[in-house]
Amino acid sequence: MSDDYRNMWRDLGLDLKAHDMLLEILGKAYQDIYLAQKDRPEQMGYFDFVMSEVHGLRVKELMDEKAAGRKIIGSYCVFVPEEIALAGNATLVGLCSGADFAMEEVEKLLPRNTCALIKSTFGFKLGKVCPYLEAADMIVGENTCDGKKKAYESLNDIVPNLYVMDIPQMKTEPGRSLLKAEYYRFKEAVENLSGVKIDAAGLKKSIEMVNNKRKAIHRLYSLRKADPAPISGLDALLANQVFFYDNPVRFTESVNKVCDELESRIEKKSGAFPEGAPRILMSGCPMAVPNWKLPWIVETTGAVIVGEESCVGERGSRNLTDDSGGTAEELMDAVVDRYFNIDCAIFTPNPDRLNHIIQMYKEYRADGVIHFGLQFCQPYLMEAIPVEKALESKNIPVLRIETDYSMEDVGQLKTRVEAFVEMLKS
Amino acid sequence: MSDDYRNMWRDLGLDLKAHDMLLEILGKAYQDIYLAQKDRPEQMGYFDFVMSEVHGLRVKELMDEKAAGRKIIGSYCVFVPEEIALAGNATLVGLCSGADFAMEEVEKLLPRNTCALIKSTFGFKLGKVCPYLEAADMIVGENTCDGKKKAYESLNDIVPNLYVMDIPQMKTEPGRSLLKAEYYRFKEAVENLSGVKIDAAGLKKSIEMVNNKRKAIHRLYSLRKADPAPISGLDALLANQVFFYDNPVRFTESVNKVCDELESRIEKKSGAFPEGAPRILMSGCPMAVPNWKLPWIVETTGAVIVGEESCVGERGSRNLTDDSGGTAEELMDAVVDRYFNIDCAIFTPNPDRLNHIIQMYKEYRADGVIHFGLQFCQPYLMEAIPVEKALESKNIPVLRIETDYSMEDVGQLKTRVEAFVEMLKS
Repeated sequence: MSDDYRNMWRDLGLDLKAHDMLLEILGKAYQDIYLAQKDRPEQMGYFDFVMSEVHGLRVKELMDEKAAGRKIIGSYCVFVPEEIALAGNATLVGLCSGADFAMEEVEKLLPRNTCALIKSTFGFKLGKVCPYLEAADMIVGENTCDGKKKAYESLNDIVPNLYVMDIPQMKTEPGRSLLKAEYYRFKEAVENLSGVKIDAAGLKKSIEMVNNKRKAIHRLYSLRKADPAPISGLDALLANQVFFYDNPVRFTESVNKVCDELESRIEKKSGAFPEGAPRILMSGCPMAVPNWKLPWIVETTGAVIVGEESCVGERGSRNLTDDSGGTAEELMDAVVDRYFNIDCAIFTPNPDRLNHIIQMYKEYRADGVIHFGLQFCQPYLMEAIPVEKALESKNIPVLRIETDYSMEDVGQLKTRVEAFVEMLKS
Repeated sequence: MSDDYRNMWRDLGLDLKAHDMLLEILGKAYQDIYLAQKDRPEQMGYFDFVMSEVHGLRVKELMDEKAAGRKIIGSYCVFVPEEIALAGNATLVGLCSGADFAMEEVEKLLPRNTCALIKSTFGFKLGKVCPYLEAADMIVGENTCDGKKKAYESLNDIVPNLYVMDIPQMKTEPGRSLLKAEYYRFKEAVENLSGVKIDAAGLKKSIEMVNNKRKAIHRLYSLRKADPAPISGLDALLANQVFFYDNPVRFTESVNKVCDELESRIEKKSGAFPEGAPRILMSGCPMAVPNWKLPWIVETTGAVIVGEESCVGERGSRNLTDDSGGTAEELMDAVVDRYFNIDCAIFTPNPDRLNHIIQMYKEYRADGVIHFGLQFCQPYLMEAIPVEKALESKNIPVLRIETDYSMEDVGQLKTRVEAFVEMLKS
């Protein structure tokens, strides 16, 4: 890494030694999991570059934006509306939460029985290894699950700029009113942060920008319906992950370039996996960088993941925001409607998610569903049981996995996944 | 038990064999834990009778009420307003959730990592051993914690009459609006169930009735400030538990009789424990019948529990509802205000609870606090860590316990509690 980056990281208050260690582990994992794949689309080179610069160039860009007066907002959840941030001259970035770090320190602040994603949030802060977190002018938490909701109270003691957004639990009129009130409060908070008044023109432009990003990733999703699958699930997951922190315009272009290549691959019937490879739909908890464990296990059995029913996947990106409104009020309403549709397991009841899983299973011509639940994630682990029952009643094969970020269970997971994939072949 | 009861239980659809077993275990536990206590107030005889008839006489009374056209509403939480039920010619009863039952069946519907209270709810239904649940015309669930919120979706498949009440997560204006809308929806649901229009006169009367019950238990709380403590924590807990399902008028009278006796005990300086016994404040998760494990362990070390910062205790009963309003709207507003004040750990942030713990610690002249968290109860286990830190910073001794309904950890808990109590003595 260049000295410029090291100075930047030092200025951000990172622990350089710990951070070097993290980058080394990350680089090694990327080599073993991503670069070791065969028959990758050439255009994935862009994402390889992004990952090699994940704490370098992208952070440098954000620091340059800050120097030019733009604000950086960090987020942990798909309920934080990027449209509002962008319209207020702020950049929204997803914050680090995909690996265990500084666990001993974390468990002084959180119960051991807390999900890995939440613990990771704290670990990256306590270990001083997340430049995005340190670069952010505002960190947005949200009352989604109990774990996050209560953890933010403690996070508030260790970061200086936490903003907590309330989220409803039911898709009722009072639920929608609450979300709307919260999005207006967030709009005001962004305006106060940046000094920019959010108006109809700004919202229209930002909605278009985010919709374009979504449309590009929809195009990518759609191409995965082909057999042979033109891209691995690991590579598609990476695009879904980078969705959260790349420059939105450049991301859109880069995904569209990948899609151009995938189209020509489909024409030539060339794939990342052979034709007829067992096709898996992943469903469940979000997978943040570098939580690639389960997809890697799945795809090294010879099966290919063809879709992600996940926040880092279709749950997070599938719906567009209606940009037809003429006033800021109409556009804000469209933003509320768009996010209120998200079928997160924190909602009760949450029938849309089950319908979406079944729809994806059919559309992507999947052979089976693997449900990924993070240990101690109550909403998804609880919903997994009725989801499994409903899929089984429709003769859709399901494998329910509960795991965390450690590597201890890799052997056991491999055995279970292999048996599931074998069953799909027969 | 009389044949009448057996016929009643059979008619309610109970599994008589399993139910006999439950009553036998319950009777044995009551003998060992309650009747084995020394120096009990004579007036606790009423509660001994209530417990000996817990599935008998009280259920018979409810069945008689039903026969006379009254409705029975079952609840699992202090957020379900008894005032509204009573004003609608309905009786509110707490449902069984304090013991493990039919666990093998339960774990087909809920993840193993679910708190004991929620599992118990399912166990009593699946094991067909809760006459209150079977007698209820309406069962009210509430979106408090993630565990309950998502579990009610599955409970809905096994009970025919579940009503789910949404609960806010923040004490903001939109939060209060949501609770108000939900209480009006509940009022309407009760009216539809009973055919009775809830008006100002009815609300005023029911508020008075519930306030009287609260005032009686407040009187009991207050008398526990004396040293020697005139009543054991176990006996006071029992009164707090019976609070949820006894006839409210009779309960009020019975608690007041206990209080009369405690006053004369205090005058004579006679106590349930010797003067100077270490005094413990319990804080944390609710303890439903027959979850007496931890208080029993505490009080058999020679320490006395002088207060419960718990839903089954002051968190649930401390605030009165303002009955001064003249219209149904004003009285409904008073009901909303009263319940919106409850400092449950599902709220974020929840500073009132910490303040209340410290206030109780001082008022009850406690020597230390034992925090009781049910394993996998995320809101209370997460809040326990900052609570512990805050108390320690004020030099208040704290012991943080995480347990469930099993007896496996009794030895280990005994050792930890004994060491804590010894430390308080020194």
